[in-house]
Amino acid sequence: MQMTELIRKKREGLALSRDEIQYMIENFTNGNIPDYQMSAFCMAVIFKGMNDEETAALTQAMAHSGDMLDLSCFGNLSVDKHSTGGVGDKTSLVIGPIVASCGCVFAKMSGRGLGHTGGTIDKLESLNGYRTSATQKEFLEQAERIGIALIGQTGNFAPADKKLYALRDVTDTVDSIPLIVSSIMSKKIAAGAKNIVLDVKCGSGAFMKDTASARILAEKMVKIGKKCGRNIAAVITDMDVPLGYAVGNALEVKEAIDLLKGKNISDLRQICIAVSAHLVSMCLGISLQEAEEKANKALTNGAAFAKFKEWISAQGADADWADDTNKFPKAPVEYELLSEKDGYISHMDAEMIGRASMELGAGRKTKDDMIDHAAGIVLRIKNGEYVKRGDVLATLYTSDDKKLCRAKELYLSALEFSDKKPINGKLIIDIVK
Amino acid sequence: MQMTELIRKKREGLALSRDEIQYMIENFTNGNIPDYQMSAFCMAVIFKGMNDEETAALTQAMAHSGDMLDLSCFGNLSVDKHSTGGVGDKTSLVIGPIVASCGCVFAKMSGRGLGHTGGTIDKLESLNGYRTSATQKEFLEQAERIGIALIGQTGNFAPADKKLYALRDVTDTVDSIPLIVSSIMSKKIAAGAKNIVLDVKCGSGAFMKDTASARILAEKMVKIGKKCGRNIAAVITDMDVPLGYAVGNALEVKEAIDLLKGKNISDLRQICIAVSAHLVSMCLGISLQEAEEKANKALTNGAAFAKFKEWISAQGADADWADDTNKFPKAPVEYELLSEKDGYISHMDAEMIGRASMELGAGRKTKDDMIDHAAGIVLRIKNGEYVKRGDVLATLYTSDDKKLCRAKELYLSALEFSDKKPINGKLIIDIVK
Repeated sequence: MQMTELIRKKREGLALSRDEIQYMIENFTNGNIPDYQMSAFCMAVIFKGMNDEETAALTQAMAHSGDMLDLSCFGNLSVDKHSTGGVGDKTSLVIGPIVASCGCVFAKMSGRGLGHTGGTIDKLESLNGYRTSATQKEFLEQAERIGIALIGQTGNFAPADKKLYALRDVTDTVDSIPLIVSSIMSKKIAAGAKNIVLDVKCGSGAFMKDTASARILAEKMVKIGKKCGRNIAAVITDMDVPLGYAVGNALEVKEAIDLLKGKNISDLRQICIAVSAHLVSMCLGISLQEAEEKANKALTNGAAFAKFKEWISAQGADADWADDTNKFPKAPVEYELLSEKDGYISHMDAEMIGRASMELGAGRKTKDDMIDHAAGIVLRIKNGEYVKRGDVLATLYTSDDKKLCRAKELYLSALEFSDKKPINGKLIIDIVK
Repeated sequence: MQMTELIRKKREGLALSRDEIQYMIENFTNGNIPDYQMSAFCMAVIFKGMNDEETAALTQAMAHSGDMLDLSCFGNLSVDKHSTGGVGDKTSLVIGPIVASCGCVFAKMSGRGLGHTGGTIDKLESLNGYRTSATQKEFLEQAERIGIALIGQTGNFAPADKKLYALRDVTDTVDSIPLIVSSIMSKKIAAGAKNIVLDVKCGSGAFMKDTASARILAEKMVKIGKKCGRNIAAVITDMDVPLGYAVGNALEVKEAIDLLKGKNISDLRQICIAVSAHLVSMCLGISLQEAEEKANKALTNGAAFAKFKEWISAQGADADWADDTNKFPKAPVEYELLSEKDGYISHMDAEMIGRASMELGAGRKTKDDMIDHAAGIVLRIKNGEYVKRGDVLATLYTSDDKKLCRAKELYLSALEFSDKKPINGKLIIDIVK
């Protein structure tokens, strides 16, 4: 087999066979196929696409290119969720405890964040003592014992995807549906869970700018997940605005705890329940309605909160912090950002708010940056609400007041004002199963 | 400027500016832009093309990426020809002396061949003593003195093209008209002649398989040549069959000499006169008809043959060999290939015949192969003629009779027979000016 022939086939719009894709990924990963051939191939995919069989073969070839987490000991009970990225997205911290208290096994390895805010692991590290590493044996034992374990990624998962993504990033071949799908799904397949729910974000701040393209991505991911033998569903959600009110690591953990303790944070609660319900339904083989009732009940009756504390204690953190969130360290600088205008907030640019939070110290610009766990933003007014000049728009938290200026500027530029009360769109736009 | 932005522009079908193309080629040549970005760009060009301004900018950027031969001392008199490659194409050996004896300056650096047969330099080396290298001063002085000099390529001409072509070859991005045009034309522009005639081959054995695509290529090359300030024309010729009867280095030189001495080799003569006439017309500013008469006269009255002898003597070869071609070394093995069938030869696959000749030792399979100058094939029957079982189809020449078997097989597979007399197509299909 020759890589030039595979490039030619794709150029001509023909489908590659499973063996051809396996050959290509294997030899790309081990360095026999050079980057320049792979990037030419990816550009041909940009123009000619890949059908479902090819995308599934690519997904599986990349999933099998490195370690695979074996969760088969949990039978049908293992669950996983994935979000295509969002500002203020702390849903894993809530969904994990909900589904674990419903009898699912949420055994997840999670990455660190690069960009707006930290990843789930960065958020959890704001809990003093939380151990993000464990042996595979410890990890599986904890998941078996309490139904939930969440550690940082160890091992070499889907190295083909890592290498291919890095190449796509510098050759402008990122935005191809089959390449995006196989990149996300190869990691999910390697992560081993039998049941998967995807949260596909849609809107100006998301990778998918409109509902139509988000639906195409969601449908393709669900199809490929099924072809790889998983139970899978996707929730298409609006991320034109941040989820909840908190953006920044410790701030988000505190908000997740607030929700688990019964505070009504409407948008955040809605998505956590929807994703949990689908996971519980698939995992336990019950109707969606029944599963939603179970998830709601776990959140309302304190079972999920108890599970959260059990979880963080098992991983070495002090569960008292959950009972009294005042124990979290506070940022030395706390700044109330006032409105300079009157009017309705008609739009909030989630990505811009994420960047403001990053400026305050909550995110990483480069891989080696340190995260300031206490830094971030708490929104005081969300879109659709009316503000008067002088009202507090948001509270900014940082350890360095020199960082305020740029963050204020970014935050203000994220807002649009209107004289008329805007109509907020639906938060959950669609479900794909 | 960022290469990823340039890739994006091309992906979206936008045109790059002259500065952007200059930046890209400069940084690709010096290694700042890696191969994997350039190959992704080339694949985007496969799908989205380049307009004439972009192609001209690419041509000039590549032409200026290394040495440029300065022929300005010859004013409007410098001429150059280029063929897109053909089996048995010995036209340079005839055209050079014709145009030089008409007052043009044919100062050319030529490459070695890889594939079917040798390049012009390989052919000339079958003349004992012919010096293929000279200092630039010697080269220009000879051209000034006798109107013709032909040496092997020295210096670093269009290194950007060399690097880009090697990359395109392994990423299946060769067959894009703007990339082909800029590759050929960048070398012609760097080669310095004011007047250029291109011989664009067309047919099953050529890169361009049909007249329509050969015309597109020819028109684009002429347009780009003019944009770069050259006088230029293209002759579109049929190369479904070899040109003349001889294929192989010394055999082709002897055939060129035969033509210069007045032998009527119809197809070869026709193309040599057509290309010469266009060069002479552009160079001297006379009508095409007048130029054609001049070229014909130079061939008929022996002036071109005298110029040939003057030329090869000036470069160290023995001109007596031209007077008596029996002085060329003969191949030890001479084999008459007989027809096994009766019928008209309706088609001869030129490329297959080229491969047969290569098997006999006349060409190089790899860059380091030695050429056997005496090896090759002389066709005894050409397409359109009738043969009977037992008639001689061709004479095969080699130094090693073990090479005959495969060559015979290839030669026979190149022929198609028919009961009806076939109609030969036009040799010169079109002229593009």
